[in-house]
Amino acid sequence: MPTITLPRIIYPFPSLINQFVTAAHEQNRQWVADFGFITTPEAMARFDRSRFAWLAARAFPHAGFHELCTIANFNTWLFMLDDQCDEAQLGKKSVYLEHVTDGFMNILKHNTPVDTVLGRSFTDIWERMQALGDTAWQARFIRSMEEYFTSCHWEAGNRAADIVPTVAEYVTMRPYTGALFADVEAIEIIEKVYLPAHILQHFIVQRLVLACNNIVCWANDIFSCAKEARQGDVHNLVLVLKHERNITLQEAVNETARMHNEEVKLFTALEKLLPSFGAETDKELERFMAVLRSWITANYDWSFHDTGRYQVKEVEVVINS
Amino acid sequence: MPTITLPRIIYPFPSLINQFVTAAHEQNRQWVADFGFITTPEAMARFDRSRFAWLAARAFPHAGFHELCTIANFNTWLFMLDDQCDEAQLGKKSVYLEHVTDGFMNILKHNTPVDTVLGRSFTDIWERMQALGDTAWQARFIRSMEEYFTSCHWEAGNRAADIVPTVAEYVTMRPYTGALFADVEAIEIIEKVYLPAHILQHFIVQRLVLACNNIVCWANDIFSCAKEARQGDVHNLVLVLKHERNITLQEAVNETARMHNEEVKLFTALEKLLPSFGAETDKELERFMAVLRSWITANYDWSFHDTGRYQVKEVEVVINS
Repeated sequence: MPTITLPRIIYPFPSLINQFVTAAHEQNRQWVADFGFITTPEAMARFDRSRFAWLAARAFPHAGFHELCTIANFNTWLFMLDDQCDEAQLGKKSVYLEHVTDGFMNILKHNTPVDTVLGRSFTDIWERMQALGDTAWQARFIRSMEEYFTSCHWEAGNRAADIVPTVAEYVTMRPYTGALFADVEAIEIIEKVYLPAHILQHFIVQRLVLACNNIVCWANDIFSCAKEARQGDVHNLVLVLKHERNITLQEAVNETARMHNEEVKLFTALEKLLPSFGAETDKELERFMAVLRSWITANYDWSFHDTGRYQVKEVEVVINS
Repeated sequence: MPTITLPRIIYPFPSLINQFVTAAHEQNRQWVADFGFITTPEAMARFDRSRFAWLAARAFPHAGFHELCTIANFNTWLFMLDDQCDEAQLGKKSVYLEHVTDGFMNILKHNTPVDTVLGRSFTDIWERMQALGDTAWQARFIRSMEEYFTSCHWEAGNRAADIVPTVAEYVTMRPYTGALFADVEAIEIIEKVYLPAHILQHFIVQRLVLACNNIVCWANDIFSCAKEARQGDVHNLVLVLKHERNITLQEAVNETARMHNEEVKLFTALEKLLPSFGAETDKELERFMAVLRSWITANYDWSFHDTGRYQVKEVEVVINS
């Protein structure tokens, strides 16, 4: 049976964790039970092992308890949507998926209720977020969610038509399919980092956000490539590289790791290119950058050490590679 | 003496040219004479051979005469600034360069005059542009120029400190060093294409603009790599690839061509992914896309067939490669 060796990944950034992590986990398990995501002890045991609150607590290490719960619930909601896409094969039914995500957009834009587990729980999250962020922030968050849903439709269309995207297409769409831009927008309301629009839109800041996003997503693609190869999903950088270049899975893993490491180098190089915007703004921007860095290590630490969701090992057994 | 073979580049887009091209050339030569850029018959003969108006006429094939002259003068101004960077070694003096570009930013932001050839001519262009574009457009154009100047400072800092950028850094900064984003903003006022902000900011539209920019700039880097290698400038994708990967110039040319062709493929793939925004907006967006396509062919046709500026041949003789 073929095996692949996962590359060793080391980041030049610290690993931090929020002091409220266990309390947030308690709140999160209550929240999924209250909204009807989890209905059996077995499902709750699996949920406990997923330790979603740890991802949020590592990514947002300085958030207050209420804010940490809000973002942990939001990220849990994204995982639940992802599971529905897999389990109910929603991820293949692109027309029905568009109907579902239109409902979520109506929640975001008009607070129109949607009477499903995902709909009611999303309204609950969005109500708390609206209390935390002003209308300008809300508009940015809504846009990032709209882009996320658009990328979900793209994936569903590919699955329905059995299309393997090109590497260039995949790299273009990948930053959206993980919804990480929504999490980056959330930095303002969760870690209380307030930056003027022209700083957030500065091209070096934007490229740093994209680099953070690429690093997180491509690392995920490395961790999950064996599982996704088994499941037949092609939306993974390792698998699109393997397909397009006609190389082995191990070679594709190595190429993904090379691209990932280049992106880490780019991140550290671009940090040094940031101009000064004045002492106060620079301090705030440094807090923003710190959350980007903690997202990078959070994703790795959570995937490797915390969660039972991916069961990542350094050597993976692959079937049908 | 080592030679390199330039790859054959073919685009799946039409080559068009504005009907006012020769009249715009006449206006442009009068304009450079009036503002004191050109003071000798020899310089005017060289200017004539550069045929800058042809680049603008190919990129903006449907612009009216006044608009075509405005953008031809603007692009000529950029070339004149570029020449000053080379000839007066302004491109190495990063502190002085910042002083110069601060003056241009003051023209853009406050219409503050700058009493130099570049300053007076820039004011003349900006006055015409302000009459053509509303304040929202002006803000976008100013931002694109600010990003362009920031990237010039980055290049100057590298030259002063003898730094060869990494490929990742170079690819990040290259879309700005060519000022092409400013030309893309100019589509609104030159070709009268009016798109709402959320369409211009749509992530697929943005990636299409970046792809257009990368295609134009990387093609330029291929055409000019022999000249820039001779001049010792490292700000060229071919040359940073050669340096970072320790490969031959021909191998680096081939790799640049591969990246360039991938970007063309991405452009055509992303065009198909654009969602519909309603019949009227779709029509306007198609006009916008048509200018992006004509920029791509304009750059190639002008570099190869029109201008004497680069003297591009299919086989280049290289010294000190």
